[in-house]
Order: sequence, then structure tokens, then C-alpha cells
Amino acid sequence: MKVFIEPIGRLINEFTKLPGVGAKTAQRYAYKVINMKNEEAEAFAEAILRAKREVRYCKICGNYAEGDVCDICRERDRSVICVVKEPKDVVAMEKAHEFKGVYHVLHGVISPMDGVGPNDIRIRELLSRVSEGGVDEVIMATNPDVEGEATAMYISSLLKPLGIKVTRLAHGIPIGSEIEYADEVTISRALADRKPL
Amino acid sequence: MKVFIEPIGRLINEFTKLPGVGAKTAQRYAYKVINMKNEEAEAFAEAILRAKREVRYCKICGNYAEGDVCDICRERDRSVICVVKEPKDVVAMEKAHEFKGVYHVLHGVISPMDGVGPNDIRIRELLSRVSEGGVDEVIMATNPDVEGEATAMYISSLLKPLGIKVTRLAHGIPIGSEIEYADEVTISRALADRKPL
Repeated sequence: MKVFIEPIGRLINEFTKLPGVGAKTAQRYAYKVINMKNEEAEAFAEAILRAKREVRYCKICGNYAEGDVCDICRERDRSVICVVKEPKDVVAMEKAHEFKGVYHVLHGVISPMDGVGPNDIRIRELLSRVSEGGVDEVIMATNPDVEGEATAMYISSLLKPLGIKVTRLAHGIPIGSEIEYADEVTISRALADRKPL
Repeated sequence: MKVFIEPIGRLINEFTKLPGVGAKTAQRYAYKVINMKNEEAEAFAEAILRAKREVRYCKICGNYAEGDVCDICRERDRSVICVVKEPKDVVAMEKAHEFKGVYHVLHGVISPMDGVGPNDIRIRELLSRVSEGGVDEVIMATNPDVEGEATAMYISSLLKPLGIKVTRLAHGIPIGSEIEYADEVTISRALADRKPL
């Protein structure tokens, strides 16, 4: 005797493909869908199909876009480019409401262990954007891990000879956290980069 | 400047309708969908529509079924009926692989506070099943909370005059747990219902 009838079992299986979703959570999600109104379930399914169908990549920065060029590239100051690993990093940056420039999404970082070299991510596209002129500064905002740092260093070594100012985000103790819980690498970095008061 | 383009924002919004899913989790799910292959996203959307379209209620027990009558009602011993609140309780019971009888899903419990009376849940259907004969025992498996207990008592008071044996699941310390962490009500119940060794 199978525990779930086929359409429920299949939906549970689909939900387990989402990140961090186990059998129990998938089951709760599936029951929620079954208890939705028809229109709600249809809107849900349609949103999945539309997101898949309509989301394109901006041909300038590589971020998600509805058309050929994203709103950020169309409307903002192109003299400062912030380089990030993935589209979700753009979202995180935008939520701070501080950065007024444009982005460049690499879609990955250099990682020899995973067979990802400089030509496998959008570095060439960044160089051609910069060589078109009008760019004053490139801010590296890759993650503070081995691959992210190496990628930032590599890109920096390509841009500096072109006379471009290359900076990177500051690292240190996160605001609102407690020093007691900061890891030793973060504390070391915060100490080395300490600023005069 | 909106943070998400429209199709992504819409999909995130749909995911937040799932139980326990906040903005951050919904965002992770949406990115996962966008990075799926086309066929995968289509299978996901189709599973939602199919579950909604094909899941019916068994006209005997009220559990989810693909046809008119569920597999459990069709194939198992109908002389013992286990009464539960919701279809997901059937799943929990089935996972124990112990119960060989059939179920009756109430689709709710009596709850005057929420305006749910005896006629709003499937009690009438249970009585008519029992009055058709062939039922030896009804096991109450409603939740051990105020509404669940009251519902069990109420149903029991209707069934006993018909000469039906009415039992309920034992309550006590869960297997594999530690007494140290059991709440006082559970310990009181476990003490009161203690059994000779």
C-alpha cells in the first residue's frame, strides 16, 4: 500500500528538488497546494512557467532582465561597475540602497578545483565594457572566500594596466553582530584593516 | 528601482504562500526554478496542476483518492475504522505499517471557538458507515488537544449506544524521547495510564 496517491507523490517529489526541502516539508507544501483554490494553483503553476520563459540575461551586465537590457544598465551611472558572482548578489547589494552605479555579473568565480577557468566566467565581457571607455571605478564584490578573492585579484591584475581604479568591499565585523561570535579570520581582517577614529 | 524583475517577483510571491516560507526562502526557491532546465520547470508546474486536478476525496472515508474510492477502502479490513482529523494523519498512521483497517477522515474537529460544530465535519458520514453494519471497533485518533479530545468524546457518545467498541490511541512518553524533556501534561498522562510490567 503506497502512502501517497500518485499525483500527490509526484508533487511532493517536485518540491524536494527545491534547495533545503526534505520529504516532510515537501509534504506540507503539497498539502497546501491541494487545499488551494483552483485559480491559486493555476497562478502558482503559471508563475513558474512565466519566470522560466520570460527571464533573460541583460546583454550588458549579465543580470536577470525582462528585455535585452536590464533597468539598472538602462538608467544608472555607468562610470562605476560593481562586479559580483551571481544575480542574487545584485539583489543583496540593491537592498542596501547605497550603490548608484551598474553591475557586472560573472556567473561564477575562477575555481581550478571545479574546472572553472577565467574564460568560463564573464571576465572577457567585463574587459570589453571597460575598454569602451567611460568607466572610472570597478568595485570587486565577490565573496570573501578563496575563489572569490582569487577572482578579484585576477580581474584587478587585468584592469589596473588599463588605468582603471579597482577597489573591493571592506571586510570586518558585521554591523549588529557581537564580537564574541565573530570568527577568528574575520577578527584578524578587522584588526588589520582598522581605521583611525 | 525595484529589486526583482516582475516574473521573478511574482514567483517569489507565490512561494511565500507555502507554509513557513518567508521572503528569503522564497527567493532561493525562485532562483532554483530559474536555473532549472525548461523540462524540469514544466514538470514542476504540471505536477501542481495535476495534483489540484486529479486529487479527489474518497466517498467512503474522505481521504484523498484518485478515483471515487481510495485504495485503502477498497482493499482492507472494514471492520475496524480509525477516525482522524485530516488526510495527513492517515499518512502518519500508514507510515507505522501497523494498522490494517480503514480510516474515516473528519476534515476538522469540533471547535466552538472557530464556529465549527458537529455538522460541519464528517460525523454524519461516520454514523451512516457504522449503521450499515460490519464494524466491530472505532479507534479515535484525533489530536490530543482540547478540540481533538472533545471531538473524540462526542463521537464516542454517539457510537456507544449502537453497541460499537470505541477506543482511542494511547498517550504517553514518545518512544526514543527523553523523560527529561517530556512536558508535564504528558508525564501526568503517562503516570495515570501506567501499565503493569
